[in-house]
Amino acid sequence: MYGSIAEIYIFYTLCHDFEMNIFNRFKKRIYLDYAAATPLHPRVLRAMRPFLTETFGNPGAIHLEGVRARQAVEMARQQVATTLGIRSAEVIFTGSGTESNNIALLGLLKKLSRKDGIPYSEMEIVTTRIEHPSITNVLPALETAGVVVRYVEVDSEGKISPSALAAVLSPKTVLVTFAYANSEVGVVQNVTRLVREVRRYEKEQGTKIYVHLDAAQAPLWLSCAMERLGVDLLSLDAGKCQGPKGVGVLAFRGTLGLSPIMYGGGQEQGIRPGTENVAAIVGAATALTLAQNDYKARAQKVAMVRDVFIANLKKVWPGVVLNGPTGEDRLANNINISLPGFDTEYAVVYLDAHNIAASTKSACAGAGSGESTVVTAMTGDTYRASSTLRLTLGADTTEADMKKVLAVLLRFREKMGPVTSVSV
Amino acid sequence: MYGSIAEIYIFYTLCHDFEMNIFNRFKKRIYLDYAAATPLHPRVLRAMRPFLTETFGNPGAIHLEGVRARQAVEMARQQVATTLGIRSAEVIFTGSGTESNNIALLGLLKKLSRKDGIPYSEMEIVTTRIEHPSITNVLPALETAGVVVRYVEVDSEGKISPSALAAVLSPKTVLVTFAYANSEVGVVQNVTRLVREVRRYEKEQGTKIYVHLDAAQAPLWLSCAMERLGVDLLSLDAGKCQGPKGVGVLAFRGTLGLSPIMYGGGQEQGIRPGTENVAAIVGAATALTLAQNDYKARAQKVAMVRDVFIANLKKVWPGVVLNGPTGEDRLANNINISLPGFDTEYAVVYLDAHNIAASTKSACAGAGSGESTVVTAMTGDTYRASSTLRLTLGADTTEADMKKVLAVLLRFREKMGPVTSVSV
Repeated sequence: MYGSIAEIYIFYTLCHDFEMNIFNRFKKRIYLDYAAATPLHPRVLRAMRPFLTETFGNPGAIHLEGVRARQAVEMARQQVATTLGIRSAEVIFTGSGTESNNIALLGLLKKLSRKDGIPYSEMEIVTTRIEHPSITNVLPALETAGVVVRYVEVDSEGKISPSALAAVLSPKTVLVTFAYANSEVGVVQNVTRLVREVRRYEKEQGTKIYVHLDAAQAPLWLSCAMERLGVDLLSLDAGKCQGPKGVGVLAFRGTLGLSPIMYGGGQEQGIRPGTENVAAIVGAATALTLAQNDYKARAQKVAMVRDVFIANLKKVWPGVVLNGPTGEDRLANNINISLPGFDTEYAVVYLDAHNIAASTKSACAGAGSGESTVVTAMTGDTYRASSTLRLTLGADTTEADMKKVLAVLLRFREKMGPVTSVSV
Repeated sequence: MYGSIAEIYIFYTLCHDFEMNIFNRFKKRIYLDYAAATPLHPRVLRAMRPFLTETFGNPGAIHLEGVRARQAVEMARQQVATTLGIRSAEVIFTGSGTESNNIALLGLLKKLSRKDGIPYSEMEIVTTRIEHPSITNVLPALETAGVVVRYVEVDSEGKISPSALAAVLSPKTVLVTFAYANSEVGVVQNVTRLVREVRRYEKEQGTKIYVHLDAAQAPLWLSCAMERLGVDLLSLDAGKCQGPKGVGVLAFRGTLGLSPIMYGGGQEQGIRPGTENVAAIVGAATALTLAQNDYKARAQKVAMVRDVFIANLKKVWPGVVLNGPTGEDRLANNINISLPGFDTEYAVVYLDAHNIAASTKSACAGAGSGESTVVTAMTGDTYRASSTLRLTLGADTTEADMKKVLAVLLRFREKMGPVTSVSV
């Protein structure tokens, strides 16, 4: 009996190997869109598996199946807390990074309005013009309620300067929100320095200003230690750091008493209702921990591949412009270039046909054409903003991969020749 | 080389078999909390697997990985649409049944306010007092905005009578929302009959009343054909019908133009932002389709097991009271009894210790003690509402399983003897 199972297994293995060989020989893809989606880490899938099969209980139930599910959720919460250096009561699980951002903004201001009695018209939010749609598209809802949104201008590399930030703070400021690392151009903000500026102003004014950090792009490459960062709220998205899609984390310091934006059961401290997505929560905790465990070595390795590519590209394509900063101020895996005069949406299609996955900008900002609002906000240069190409690397991206990318890009240039007008 | 792999496989198989044998011999559980959580159908997990491994792209991206993910999401949408008998543009995926309910209520009324210019104070919602927390807890948010909520009283079995419904409709009614099948007591509403009543009133008044059905408990046991049901909006939760947790469906007829309750990328027609949870969406579509494919045979089989148990229980325990209706008006897998004078929370613990998973009420209504608001609303009998025990069966629950449950319940009675006062 076991003989026949073994035979089936050998046959399966052979088929699988054969398939993989075909895949590798004819379809070896170079995936450079880590900012949009990441493959699940094998250890994450392994951690999730029991909760996709036998351990399926509702964590709200008091029987064995429920208790096991509850234990898994609370262990995951403790794991995330440890990874971020906070207490487990300061971690809630949400349905996505988008939802974490929505709760951070809407839930905090609703709390300030309902519980602290501050009218919306007496509240100001400070942010930038280079945030992700899950921040920028939330703001109009708050503006409708009477909140004033003030924008810190970023410099041409996307950096927020402490003095520019200080200049827009006001006694009415209740929230400062910005991305740790920008998903399009990869600019990394000096969070601790900016927070220090906020704390200084707070002290002067005797007010409380919450600082929210959208850290969706950070875990694989930057430290997410919340104490050191000094922020009050932090959004994370498991799907962006080799965890499953459909699960986010909202971390906060102390007992903020955030108001919910959806209503239902009392799950997640009454802040985020709905049966806990046990498998995804376990996956998120595993992914975040793995990401943070060795982010430094990973970042160092990938930044080198990034910098070699940028240097090589500049050598052979003098017209190319790097969007965003260089060195430590740039996310280790982010390459964002403008190829003025070229249709980079077509470049993405061309690269794809040559088995390279790239993008022009954020997938959430619409896959189609049109200029990058991020690059426009940074540079005011719509010509440059209309010809962006984003390559976001993974931990396993090699210099050889990037050499191939460079070769394909040069073939693209040869094939196209520069166009004279920008397609809109 | 393959020999050694085969050996490893045999060893693994033996270990696994051994583990399963131990599990079966010592820990065979009878899981009777299907209303709270369901095991993933093996075919659902199989359908999800590629999207948890190699096909991980962001459906918003235009490269191959993105396109494959997009195709999977749109095929899943088409599959759900076909299963519900509607168009794929009438299906959006959400993060849970709770979120579907929130969008249905908050999103519809926000749309009526913003786009149609109806002030909140001119809107009325009609519902019952036996709805799930993801409906009842949304209502206060709307009441704060000025909406009036009118309650149809249900009868002692939890049924809404068409005349009672007609009596609370008013020219200001914009939404009628109720559950297809109640998650606690299993009462199934006569949806088509109730909708007919609403349509008659609509016609008389020349107004538009949207009917929303919370069908979270329905797919395994009842037809979810939307055209036949006649409702405008329908909420589903994959985790309640052998699909994955963390994904819901909101189906609607026509182009309702629902407003979002969260903001971000333009995913799901701009109604529900965030990177699409591809694996979960594929799993949800598969689960809903499998559930609906043979719901009739499944319901017939399980209802028989249910009815034999209820009859046997009544024979040996004359004081037992069945909450909710009998026959076709009752969800096929729902048994909800009151054991007046007994601490049924302890009964759940006792059953659990005897490898039977049961509950007192909805996991989302709090796992702890306290009376069932549903049974109170139905009967006005707090004594009865404080001693509820809910057994929700699966397709594989057998008469033998239920005989064991009966035996354990009788042992529980013997051990406890009735208490004289109700613990609160």
